[in-house]
Amino acid sequence: MNTFGKKMTLTTFGESHGKALGCILDGVPAGLTIDEAFIQEELDRRRPGKSPLETGRKEADRVEILSGTFEGFSTGTPIAMVIFNTNQKSKDYDSIKDLFRPGHADFTYYHKYGIRDYRGGGRSSARETAARVAGGAIAKLMLREIGIEIHSGLCEVDGIRAESFDFDYARSSRMLALDPDTEKQQEEAILQAKNNHDSVGGVVLTRATGLPVGLGEPLYYKLDAVLAEAMMGINAAKAVEIGDGIATTHMKGSQNNDPITPEGFASNHAGGILGGISNGDTLLVKTHFKPTPSIFRPQQTINTEGEAVTCELKGRHDPCVAIRGAVVCEAMMALVLADMALLGLGKKMEHITTLYADSAQKGNA
Amino acid sequence: MNTFGKKMTLTTFGESHGKALGCILDGVPAGLTIDEAFIQEELDRRRPGKSPLETGRKEADRVEILSGTFEGFSTGTPIAMVIFNTNQKSKDYDSIKDLFRPGHADFTYYHKYGIRDYRGGGRSSARETAARVAGGAIAKLMLREIGIEIHSGLCEVDGIRAESFDFDYARSSRMLALDPDTEKQQEEAILQAKNNHDSVGGVVLTRATGLPVGLGEPLYYKLDAVLAEAMMGINAAKAVEIGDGIATTHMKGSQNNDPITPEGFASNHAGGILGGISNGDTLLVKTHFKPTPSIFRPQQTINTEGEAVTCELKGRHDPCVAIRGAVVCEAMMALVLADMALLGLGKKMEHITTLYADSAQKGNA
Amino acid sequence: MNTFGKKMTLTTFGESHGKALGCILDGVPAGLTIDEAFIQEELDRRRPGKSPLETGRKEADRVEILSGTFEGFSTGTPIAMVIFNTNQKSKDYDSIKDLFRPGHADFTYYHKYGIRDYRGGGRSSARETAARVAGGAIAKLMLREIGIEIHSGLCEVDGIRAESFDFDYARSSRMLALDPDTEKQQEEAILQAKNNHDSVGGVVLTRATGLPVGLGEPLYYKLDAVLAEAMMGINAAKAVEIGDGIATTHMKGSQNNDPITPEGFASNHAGGILGGISNGDTLLVKTHFKPTPSIFRPQQTINTEGEAVTCELKGRHDPCVAIRGAVVCEAMMALVLADMALLGLGKKMEHITTLYADSAQKGNA
Amino acid sequence: MNTFGKKMTLTTFGESHGKALGCILDGVPAGLTIDEAFIQEELDRRRPGKSPLETGRKEADRVEILSGTFEGFSTGTPIAMVIFNTNQKSKDYDSIKDLFRPGHADFTYYHKYGIRDYRGGGRSSARETAARVAGGAIAKLMLREIGIEIHSGLCEVDGIRAESFDFDYARSSRMLALDPDTEKQQEEAILQAKNNHDSVGGVVLTRATGLPVGLGEPLYYKLDAVLAEAMMGINAAKAVEIGDGIATTHMKGSQNNDPITPEGFASNHAGGILGGISNGDTLLVKTHFKPTPSIFRPQQTINTEGEAVTCELKGRHDPCVAIRGAVVCEAMMALVLADMALLGLGKKMEHITTLYADSAQKGNA
Repeated sequence: MNTFGKKMTLTTFGESHGKALGCILDGVPAGLTIDEAFIQEELDRRRPGKSPLETGRKEADRVEILSGTFEGFSTGTPIAMVIFNTNQKSKDYDSIKDLFRPGHADFTYYHKYGIRDYRGGGRSSARETAARVAGGAIAKLMLREIGIEIHSGLCEVDGIRAESFDFDYARSSRMLALDPDTEKQQEEAILQAKNNHDSVGGVVLTRATGLPVGLGEPLYYKLDAVLAEAMMGINAAKAVEIGDGIATTHMKGSQNNDPITPEGFASNHAGGILGGISNGDTLLVKTHFKPTPSIFRPQQTINTEGEAVTCELKGRHDPCVAIRGAVVCEAMMALVLADMALLGLGKKMEHITTLYADSAQKGNA
Repeated sequence: MNTFGKKMTLTTFGESHGKALGCILDGVPAGLTIDEAFIQEELDRRRPGKSPLETGRKEADRVEILSGTFEGFSTGTPIAMVIFNTNQKSKDYDSIKDLFRPGHADFTYYHKYGIRDYRGGGRSSARETAARVAGGAIAKLMLREIGIEIHSGLCEVDGIRAESFDFDYARSSRMLALDPDTEKQQEEAILQAKNNHDSVGGVVLTRATGLPVGLGEPLYYKLDAVLAEAMMGINAAKAVEIGDGIATTHMKGSQNNDPITPEGFASNHAGGILGGISNGDTLLVKTHFKPTPSIFRPQQTINTEGEAVTCELKGRHDPCVAIRGAVVCEAMMALVLADMALLGLGKKMEHITTLYADSAQKGNA
Repeated sequence: MNTFGKKMTLTTFGESHGKALGCILDGVPAGLTIDEAFIQEELDRRRPGKSPLETGRKEADRVEILSGTFEGFSTGTPIAMVIFNTNQKSKDYDSIKDLFRPGHADFTYYHKYGIRDYRGGGRSSARETAARVAGGAIAKLMLREIGIEIHSGLCEVDGIRAESFDFDYARSSRMLALDPDTEKQQEEAILQAKNNHDSVGGVVLTRATGLPVGLGEPLYYKLDAVLAEAMMGINAAKAVEIGDGIATTHMKGSQNNDPITPEGFASNHAGGILGGISNGDTLLVKTHFKPTPSIFRPQQTINTEGEAVTCELKGRHDPCVAIRGAVVCEAMMALVLADMALLGLGKKMEHITTLYADSAQKGNA
Repeated sequence: MNTFGKKMTLTTFGESHGKALGCILDGVPAGLTIDEAFIQEELDRRRPGKSPLETGRKEADRVEILSGTFEGFSTGTPIAMVIFNTNQKSKDYDSIKDLFRPGHADFTYYHKYGIRDYRGGGRSSARETAARVAGGAIAKLMLREIGIEIHSGLCEVDGIRAESFDFDYARSSRMLALDPDTEKQQEEAILQAKNNHDSVGGVVLTRATGLPVGLGEPLYYKLDAVLAEAMMGINAAKAVEIGDGIATTHMKGSQNNDPITPEGFASNHAGGILGGISNGDTLLVKTHFKPTPSIFRPQQTINTEGEAVTCELKGRHDPCVAIRGAVVCEAMMALVLADMALLGLGKKMEHITTLYADSAQKGNA
């Protein structure tokens, strides 16, 4: 239940205020160059505390690889990575020990398990996504070898929509804004909410280019279905769209169908997927994040005895989780695509005869 | 890859124009009364050809149980169900044998597998969803035993939104409309598109009531994530929302957080899920279906040689797949909830000590 | 729980006296020639009633493919196969309806599930292995394409050991004897036990040739471990040995280690596996079958009320299950090896870059 | 591929001479008291260097829990455990960097992955079993809560058989001997082999008591099949027997069938399993270990260029791997039984109605 993927699998562990969090990434093909600096860079992009737009928790998020590599290459054995927690302030959470924060998982974890690590939300904290980013970084390294690149950015904040999508710009923007023209206005919305002890929602657009035709395993491991699961599983996500998504429901079939030409698809309403399989066009997924549930206003809730109490939060929180969420969206897409690329091997007899004929010649497989 | 679920698993088989389609539903607890008439009723709700709003293909969709039951009860062994195809008109598809229909899976299946059963879309046809409905019906029977009920209906067609949601009405409506007041207008949109040899999109709202707190398995089998996968995997689905979904991104945290009172949640923006776990409130999921890709207008495409050709479809197709899609949404939600209910067993030590202490007394488990 | 394998998966259904039994074989690569006559031949080898050494139940065991093939080839979609039961004599089992046959699963199924299809043992009957043989036949077809062949035969019956192993001879022997010189004596042991209303045990040797180096997925899907699971899971199996198995524990390391030469291994005590991975040498597995529990002598047992009663069996039973078990051993080995061949794809980066570079050239994967 | 189990899953990582090894144990029910001292004791039993009968490598094998517990209890979230390597002597392995040790996984890993961490066998080293013992210790803690206890010991060394089985004695014996009367002779066989720079094989008997009827999930996750997989997957295992195992093949059915009486089974040839499901009697499994492949005599092998060379090993090795293997057998049996106990929940409708009715009363599940 804490494992994502089928052939390249990410199993994560760790709580917000425990000793450490980390993951085991299994199924990485042997012979991949493991660029540790790149993994750390990806973690640095997700790292909190880089700007006033983010939570003030200051974590180095230094990742350490414990296994699965040898002389700079993957060996085909599981890659374990660990990040030790260093900047916990568990005291901040004493006041919520016996109550359920509205909009949080406190209520459901308590009732499901009968016990709850209340410090920073425990396992339900978005802090766990650091492990996803570490795993996703290695997935990205593998995908690059076959020409697939993934980018993301914010296309909407607090209802303010980007008019254009510049993924290169987003990479340099401290709020991962896709549109420099609306960025300022979006930032102000975030800061204003923060000043009001409140929070705002946002929408992340994630894109992959360079996909071959054929990724996705019908009927119950379709590319779009698994991307939906991957994105909806990120903390605070409430909706996922593939390609034009909801807008397709307002078109007629004759408008929405992407015509096919000898040069490729004439449009891309589909977002790069047909029948749950990549069609070679750009992959586009939108993930909608609700406003951060942690706000610094008094809220109505109950305690573990079922009595009405007021919730007054301390601690440090992102006023707009979508920002750091964007980095997680990339990681999840990378994990999905790497898994699909591996799963796709063996779908045709010629894959098998090619690779094993080859092995017969070399005396191995 | 053709199996859905983890503890109650549905494995399906079959092509649109093959001999039969069907499924094996595994993991059904022993001792469940298997109401065959109810299973058939559910299939009848999904069955094509009941109104001009649906495809003209006339299939009896008679389901036969081959295993897993004894004297009217489930035995704990896999339940196989088969539906023989009777009304195929494969001739209709000769003209598309060598070309790729826009908006369809033809292109991707051909390139992924190098071979394609072109008759009626083969495995990629929505006809396969009959097997899901059969499996979902048994899941519903199990859920009823613990008080969970599932309903669905159309909350939007071609951009025309229902103003109110009446699930009882939807059950009697031939287009599963949730709002009798907008139904007429929605129907007209469908029929007009049909007359224009075109198609329209629609949105299905699916609801479950009676859930206990605690369904959903974090972190990678969360209830919302798996529902998103389940719904996005249905043919023609392009977006999924949980609860208020996209609307939450336009709210502030102080508006979106559902206050908790001793009597329960004071609002339900969350749609019944917190932290990937059911919170006991009504479960609400919206699934957005694109307009049917099969339309009867000339369309630009290429053939298997990569040459530009015109696609002129014959055959019989739904002008709005969302209608019959609604029945499939219910089935998928039932499969997800039944799976989650089973997976949840054993999450606390007291589950184990209760059931095995019991077994020790009786001499069995 | 009724699915075997990870990448090529066999999901079976059916009871001994139900309507039908069958399977869904998923993950078969597209483009494999499906030789239906061969599948039927394999089933005929397992079919009961061919000689006095077997049960008298006469089943045609006619297999029908319902999906997953098109114009003689696999399409990459699930292959469903069904075998309808025709020669049930459920009346024979009325007398055991309320008691537990010694050595059978009656007692455990009843207590586990609280309900039991007592007719012919229901799901626990070895009749289910027909579905495995059908699936295994397709696995064999795939393996042949990469040069792997599987054979089996009886190397011991009632303690009488074969002195030599002739797999070609076994194929023609009605008891699948590996040694023509001991066959007569072994047959007599079986027939004598049968005349005494009793039964005997036997040992099956299963062999695969033509394996590449590299099949098996450490650490928890090792080739030897999965073969052990596969064989021990066959009805009546009580022990499994890999290569020299138990005999290796009586050797010193210096005797048991197979020396490696430029021409290959100088001996094969290991049975073709090192570290859970095939080493390219002949794969050898021994499966030990207990004597058939169904015997026609009065036996001491209890009924469902817990009272002491005498069990007097009717029905038709194999006096030595190892004979037909040998065909099942081949099927299971085929399923394991096909699964491992598919899983092995993607273990090296060069697999991925080769196949996807190729796909980039062709515009697909 | 590095994950064992279905509901309680153990995912391990680490190489013999890497930074650390460890595991993530997922699926542990919340509310289990995590006795860290007990986990360390179990590791101490497996720890090398305790006597001249074992390898001289001195590892503290100090286990650290990184997640999944709170105030001494499991929380239902994944439990990560790590053991840092401290006593590697990688220099010892320089001489084997380019050659394949006979009887080892060097040859197969090199050919499968194209890259190999040659230091101490890398991932294929039995050192990884420390992680299994850590995970197995927690499984044992859970099983104790429902009255299941697991023990093991050596019933044979170098062909010298124990005449009686005293599991309490084995726990105190430095070679885990089951029979004090043969222990001396067995020890001498080990020491003599060691002096001859050679090694011996051995057989481990593992036993579980207190099982309820009903553990095991037919048809493809049977208790005996999964135990066979678990045991055969341990380094150096070459055969597995359930109950009387091979001896059953020399009995007639009338001798081998265990009669059932109102007081229980009159004998236990079956070893506690019928039809793949526990029958409530004592569970008995024998695991046969080949002699340690690492011996200090010159051996014939080839190098990575395929040239004939002599293998001269250095390093520190167990003269009889079965001794420390016994502790691993217990861990694997514990993991299997805990997994089966959890999987068994939900096999009857009354499990579901009991637990969810209960949850309805309490307002949670």
